[in-house]
Amino acid sequence: MRTLGIDPGSRVTGYGVVQQAGGRIVRVDHGEIRIKSGEPFTRCLLRIFDELTEVIERARPDAVALEDIFYGKNVKSLIKQGHVRGVALLAASRSGVPVHEYTPLEVKKAVVGYGQAEKQQVQMMIRVILQLPETLPPDASDALAVAICHTNTRKDAVL
Amino acid sequence: MRTLGIDPGSRVTGYGVVQQAGGRIVRVDHGEIRIKSGEPFTRCLLRIFDELTEVIERARPDAVALEDIFYGKNVKSLIKQGHVRGVALLAASRSGVPVHEYTPLEVKKAVVGYGQAEKQQVQMMIRVILQLPETLPPDASDALAVAICHTNTRKDAVL
Repeated sequence: MRTLGIDPGSRVTGYGVVQQAGGRIVRVDHGEIRIKSGEPFTRCLLRIFDELTEVIERARPDAVALEDIFYGKNVKSLIKQGHVRGVALLAASRSGVPVHEYTPLEVKKAVVGYGQAEKQQVQMMIRVILQLPETLPPDASDALAVAICHTNTRKDAVL
Repeated sequence: MRTLGIDPGSRVTGYGVVQQAGGRIVRVDHGEIRIKSGEPFTRCLLRIFDELTEVIERARPDAVALEDIFYGKNVKSLIKQGHVRGVALLAASRSGVPVHEYTPLEVKKAVVGYGQAEKQQVQMMIRVILQLPETLPPDASDALAVAICHTNTRKDAVL
């Protein structure tokens, strides 16, 4: 089974593809899409949609996994994140890939073992689990974390 | 000049196309896209995206106009609206149509003459301005209102 994890953000959108291979989980792809300052927002959304569609076409995942939106943020970045997330869901939906949603707690528990883990601990554990030579950037790590969470949990419910 | 107004909502998305013809503004098209209860959210987003893309291809507007998101709502419907709005912006962006944004105050002032107008007053004024035989449903009326606002204001800035 191959899973694409997406971490849509108001500034950076991370993505990561993992594949189950025997008893191991291996990384297939990862990356970050940045919203450039000064770039019109509509163009950003188009770029994020096109890049994610390309990732899906390239990696052909069986599932897409995302975190719930985290409500603690300020309302402006929450709305911006909502726009980006809508476009990410559309990319999956248009490609016919089912979308599964996990809470931040579920993701951290699946990857680090407890729910209060820091961002750097997630980065470190992603490196360990996927046996990578180096630590990956934080938003790509978060996307790989939710992909690993789905690989291990396989929640049936789709969004 | 032809303008497509969109009113993306957490439950209903209204749209309306108007055209300037001599000294008058006439309606070209209008409609509402509903989120059905029980329909997976990702499928809803795809349907909204496809329908809006179809409206753009059919009507070939020179501009798309939307209202700012209204912050007074509860955070859950705000986020849902953010998702829908992201998909609406993407439909415009993918078709190469510039997007203009107006505050609810600007829209109401442009249509009813003052900023505190009620929803029914907007519906009534839309009927009067566009010389329609009957009142249109509220979300289609709101979409036509922002399209009329752009037709009369022609704000340069794009989103």
